[in-house]
Amino acid sequence: MTFTLAHTDATSDARAASFETAHGTVRTPAFMPVGTLGSVKAVPPRALHEDVQADIILGNTYHLYLRPGTDVIEAAGGLQRFSQWNGPILTDSGGYQVFSLADRCTLTEEGAEFRSHIDGSKHLFTPESVVDTQRALGSDIMMVLDECPAADVSKAYARESNELTLRWAERARLHYEKTTSPHGHEQALFGIVQGVTYPEVRRESARALVDLDFPGYAIGGLSVGESHEDMYDMVEVVTPLLPAHKPRYLMGVGTPENLLENVARGVDMFDCVMPTRNGRNGTLFTTQGRMNIKNAQFTNDHTPIDPGLEAYVSQTFTKAYLRHLQKSNEILGLQIASQQNLAFYCWLMREARQAILDDRFMAWKDAILPQITRRW
Amino acid sequence: MTFTLAHTDATSDARAASFETAHGTVRTPAFMPVGTLGSVKAVPPRALHEDVQADIILGNTYHLYLRPGTDVIEAAGGLQRFSQWNGPILTDSGGYQVFSLADRCTLTEEGAEFRSHIDGSKHLFTPESVVDTQRALGSDIMMVLDECPAADVSKAYARESNELTLRWAERARLHYEKTTSPHGHEQALFGIVQGVTYPEVRRESARALVDLDFPGYAIGGLSVGESHEDMYDMVEVVTPLLPAHKPRYLMGVGTPENLLENVARGVDMFDCVMPTRNGRNGTLFTTQGRMNIKNAQFTNDHTPIDPGLEAYVSQTFTKAYLRHLQKSNEILGLQIASQQNLAFYCWLMREARQAILDDRFMAWKDAILPQITRRW
Ligand SMILES: [Zn+2]
Ligand SMILES: [Zn+2]
Repeated sequence: MTFTLAHTDATSDARAASFETAHGTVRTPAFMPVGTLGSVKAVPPRALHEDVQADIILGNTYHLYLRPGTDVIEAAGGLQRFSQWNGPILTDSGGYQVFSLADRCTLTEEGAEFRSHIDGSKHLFTPESVVDTQRALGSDIMMVLDECPAADVSKAYARESNELTLRWAERARLHYEKTTSPHGHEQALFGIVQGVTYPEVRRESARALVDLDFPGYAIGGLSVGESHEDMYDMVEVVTPLLPAHKPRYLMGVGTPENLLENVARGVDMFDCVMPTRNGRNGTLFTTQGRMNIKNAQFTNDHTPIDPGLEAYVSQTFTKAYLRHLQKSNEILGLQIASQQNLAFYCWLMREARQAILDDRFMAWKDAILPQITRRW
Repeated sequence: MTFTLAHTDATSDARAASFETAHGTVRTPAFMPVGTLGSVKAVPPRALHEDVQADIILGNTYHLYLRPGTDVIEAAGGLQRFSQWNGPILTDSGGYQVFSLADRCTLTEEGAEFRSHIDGSKHLFTPESVVDTQRALGSDIMMVLDECPAADVSKAYARESNELTLRWAERARLHYEKTTSPHGHEQALFGIVQGVTYPEVRRESARALVDLDFPGYAIGGLSVGESHEDMYDMVEVVTPLLPAHKPRYLMGVGTPENLLENVARGVDMFDCVMPTRNGRNGTLFTTQGRMNIKNAQFTNDHTPIDPGLEAYVSQTFTKAYLRHLQKSNEILGLQIASQQNLAFYCWLMREARQAILDDRFMAWKDAILPQITRRW
């Protein structure tokens, strides 16, 4: 993976960079729309490219492994061909879903045994098997299997868990070296820094993973119930220990504020279901602020959803129309809100990137935050 | 309404025509996608134009009157501006929904009193009020209020009901003359031929409506439980009585076979929820035949959904991918199937039109029917 650091902001640790994959270039900071089951919910790939202007999306290995099954996606020529999102894809390892969604998950040194939440069938994920699965899915960036403990575990538990995660990371790294993509393109493998909210454990994790020399690094186990302050603190602890010439990905984060605060601390990549999930529930993120589009105040608001964005849905549909669709449970209302919110997230990252290139990230962040967090 | 009869097929009563509206030209035979609540379910207006290539869509007055309310759509500048479908729109009168969906509907000489199926509130639709409502909605074609009896009523009831419908038609016609669009564009008003499956009553209805000189005529009260043979017979009874230089619209019909059989009998326009509703349930209409995309046989079918259509979804997505989306209840699966089916219906009407212009409609119909009704 060729990662090019274009510029580091003079007023913060924010970075503007880009990296090449077999399916295209990713400019960072980047937000990755979540395509759990091989589709970003309610958003066709054409709209993801042209309207949302996403550079890269995320797929969930646990979900895809169960449905439609790895073999189907491998036979299709990989997840890009299967879904017709022909840009870069990052897949997670499935670890997080095994612990949070699957039934009766048992953790051993070997891996994680679980039963499918769909049909109860028994499965085993190991550090090696999830690399194999992601090889078959053909994702441009693969993630190692890790354990993601709850936010309130003891330091002793956090350390013990982290040591297992590190042993798994080493096994995954070795297996990665010994395997290649069945689809003939390069796939990167990212290590995942764990350690709950214990700075010492976070440092141990980061140092050990850097020694294993991964193509990129994720920070995991945050946005799982800890305070925002704790999240920012842990990112501040970790990013200085990570190599400057490799990408940094903060998993499962977050609000627009969370994104900008973590960009300021040197994070390059994010993913979160918030824009799509909240959009389906009526919460709109716009360049003018946040609104619950179902509120009565929008009944006769015949202005565009978001005049500040170029996206088709932002310019074309009115607040009154979207309110009507969502109040009436029309599917098109889910499509429009999802596209608006994703377009906003990706726009925010492009604006951030330009501010970094101009050495004005902190001033831009302080100016934009009150505007985009305004409540209608 | 300027209706231009381009050609009548030499081998049948099929007609190729076109008519102008303030929002564009409609080429017939035409299929109108149903946009009940101001959106064709799961299909953005851009896709309706570019991919489905619909010339005209339908809106339901009953639904729009209740949600978002006529005043909201009038304030938006009409349904075209509200929904951003900027092409022609036909609205029904709401009569059919009042009788089938609303609670406690009471019919009087004055009109139909009912309670909303949403909040129980009391409303009255009269022949005059539904013209006013459709004036406010700004539809290019409005429909008169009618009573649509069940398929199994007696001839006496059918005649009595039809006489009420004719008195209402006369009131609607008068009110239409006395009113204009608040949006400043021309709106046509169609009369509706009723008469259940009684040829004599159908003829009485058609003759009386022709005397009232409507800009166009619908055939209503079919596709409500009678046999296909009865439907075709009634259309054969009615169409010869209707003026050749005015459009003919068969309401709520139907399957692709139904469309072609009725085109052969001189019908110009159709609407039906079948392509969208069946699509959401997994039934695909394609140029190669009909398939239940959820069937196991498509698990590893990595060929395009419908190589015979130009539409984005038909060419881009595979049967295996669409099967996966629909089996996993992904919203994108509803979007793709709805667009495929609508694109197919509109394609079928364009092909029919060309066959009529070439004087080979019957031969084309006999050749295409086995192909498109093939079961996978
Ligand atoms: Zn999140
Ligand atoms: Zn129908």
